[in-house]
Amino acid sequence: MAAHKLCMIPGPIEFHEDVLQAMATPATSHVAPNFIPALGESIELLRQILFTSGQPFIIAGSGTLGWDMTASNLVEAGEDVLVCNSGYFGDRFGECLETYGATVTHLRVPIGESPKLDDVAAALKTKKFKAITITHVDTSTGVLADIKGIADVVRKESPETLVVVDGVCSVGSEEIRMDAWGIDVVVTASQKALGAPPGLCVMGVSERAIGVFKNRKTPVPNYYANWNRWLPIMNAYEARKPSYFATPAVQNIFALNVSLKQIVAQGVEKRFAMHKEASAKVKKFIDDLGLKLVPTSLEHAANGMSAVYYPEGVVATDLLPKLAAHGIVAAGGLHVEIAPKYFRIGHMGISVTEPERGHIDATLNALKASLAECGYKGAL
Amino acid sequence: MAAHKLCMIPGPIEFHEDVLQAMATPATSHVAPNFIPALGESIELLRQILFTSGQPFIIAGSGTLGWDMTASNLVEAGEDVLVCNSGYFGDRFGECLETYGATVTHLRVPIGESPKLDDVAAALKTKKFKAITITHVDTSTGVLADIKGIADVVRKESPETLVVVDGVCSVGSEEIRMDAWGIDVVVTASQKALGAPPGLCVMGVSERAIGVFKNRKTPVPNYYANWNRWLPIMNAYEARKPSYFATPAVQNIFALNVSLKQIVAQGVEKRFAMHKEASAKVKKFIDDLGLKLVPTSLEHAANGMSAVYYPEGVVATDLLPKLAAHGIVAAGGLHVEIAPKYFRIGHMGISVTEPERGHIDATLNALKASLAECGYKGAL
Repeated sequence: MAAHKLCMIPGPIEFHEDVLQAMATPATSHVAPNFIPALGESIELLRQILFTSGQPFIIAGSGTLGWDMTASNLVEAGEDVLVCNSGYFGDRFGECLETYGATVTHLRVPIGESPKLDDVAAALKTKKFKAITITHVDTSTGVLADIKGIADVVRKESPETLVVVDGVCSVGSEEIRMDAWGIDVVVTASQKALGAPPGLCVMGVSERAIGVFKNRKTPVPNYYANWNRWLPIMNAYEARKPSYFATPAVQNIFALNVSLKQIVAQGVEKRFAMHKEASAKVKKFIDDLGLKLVPTSLEHAANGMSAVYYPEGVVATDLLPKLAAHGIVAAGGLHVEIAPKYFRIGHMGISVTEPERGHIDATLNALKASLAECGYKGAL
Repeated sequence: MAAHKLCMIPGPIEFHEDVLQAMATPATSHVAPNFIPALGESIELLRQILFTSGQPFIIAGSGTLGWDMTASNLVEAGEDVLVCNSGYFGDRFGECLETYGATVTHLRVPIGESPKLDDVAAALKTKKFKAITITHVDTSTGVLADIKGIADVVRKESPETLVVVDGVCSVGSEEIRMDAWGIDVVVTASQKALGAPPGLCVMGVSERAIGVFKNRKTPVPNYYANWNRWLPIMNAYEARKPSYFATPAVQNIFALNVSLKQIVAQGVEKRFAMHKEASAKVKKFIDDLGLKLVPTSLEHAANGMSAVYYPEGVVATDLLPKLAAHGIVAAGGLHVEIAPKYFRIGHMGISVTEPERGHIDATLNALKASLAECGYKGAL
């Protein structure tokens, strides 16, 4: 792999050499005998990673396209949707739903907090919601939502409500059990803990949600995102047959396939555990440095990333370039209300599952050194 | 590059080694100092390739997404659109437009024919069309439409009608001069004559069309495809500033950037000429073999691909595997009415502009040998 600064942001993340090599696969037809199984198998592997018997989708686009697919296929104009809003991505998903005529109720939580089950239950009593959306890990705050707990509340209070998880920053780093937990939709993308370069929208949709989709009363108000186009494509490739609606991103899918195989080969359970362990180490280091996380409690802090307030006297324009000079790319703030006050580090994928690469230690050492260079004396 | 069969279909096409190497760029943030100019410069290069001062878009997706963008941003429900329909892709683009409420009139031409200027003029007199769409090269038939002539007719008969070109199989291999010819939209994708792997929707939109978009009366009925989201992103990257709506396909854009630089460095005019020359050679060879093209005249046959009827007694299941055994991947038929009767060969990109690679000769020799193996005696 070419020498480069370590990309320790909350996605895109560092890629395995074999994943990158697959990105450079020479020209291959989207109906070639060697491509068909790469997509077909990736669909099967996603079922294992998401613990679902439902329908995965792998489509050229981004996680944002996954919102579009959810909103335009599952929600009809005039229907109510409850958005558990823990930051930037809740606002955006709400806008997306409104584009297709949904009436959106935001259940907003203070910055750094996670949606409370009692608040969700109370909100669900106010009207009949077609769907509830939850940002599993809000990349803007590093907050982890209790999707299992929320899904339980939904099943109790409003069992017909579809449970939609924005898992863009959680699939592959946080535990998700779609079928066991009663989750209907998981939206994600290739470039976070699934360990492949950006360019693919990845979804898992429960059989129940596919049923709701098939029984919708109005036509799907979207062409590219329409599951009526994509279901036959996914089914064909899974049956190892070619089909065509739009040319798939062949190289990106080869790369995703390599990464998904690695994930399943290593064991999904083990992957969850390793992300928890790495996160605990990062967060202890941050605490030892005297820095404060954006999430108000470790109980609802993501395991694949950390959002950290700058200490007094240190600002983004100081710290981030110094980290870069140490070979570490970190991210600035994204939540509009506190953007200049914090930074974000990703700890996902091979940086976690292959600790011998030393990515986490390099990042933490660079953070400590950079803070010192910024004049921070704190607990160094 | 890994050993592989030559991908001589009408896209994806063979990629330059440097393009593939860019696909394997290690993890890079979508706001990294080395990524921003790759996207920014690609936008500028597209202006040169499309001969326009208008607005290029480069977005994770496929050419099909470009239809979505055109239909949902430029056409409002109830407006009329004239679709010059020369095959499969006219049908699909029409469906896409209807999804967003357009009233579509198909100007259908017989298989192998190209839309006639008089017919276009007559159709334009029947009502006021918001837009006319033309499949520049119909990948299903290899027919080349006279977009310059049609744009002239539109300017004369109905100057307010937006001229939309589906250039998925033509940008980079066929002459297109957006501004000089009065073309408002060109939709394409990365994997054809732009010479990069699939995964990117690429567009050029005239200043006039952007103005029409900005003055639309109703909200854009689409989230992911909404130009209100993408215009600020394209403007930011072109100004070499980061911005965020959806994570761009970083590696694919690095690869596209390499290919666009190669195209402009070699000269766009020279590229057009080389594609004409290579196409003439392929078509003469096909004629010499006694085979018949799907396009009814060389006057309206594409320069980047050839659609060829099987000779009597030869079928797809005979010829395509034999070509593959000779190391050449060709494509079967796509136009539903004649699909089993013909095959398709792509001759675009480095296979044409770097003749020293010998791709065209290898393809033609394999075709001749394979036909003989199929028992074809014809003019061999």
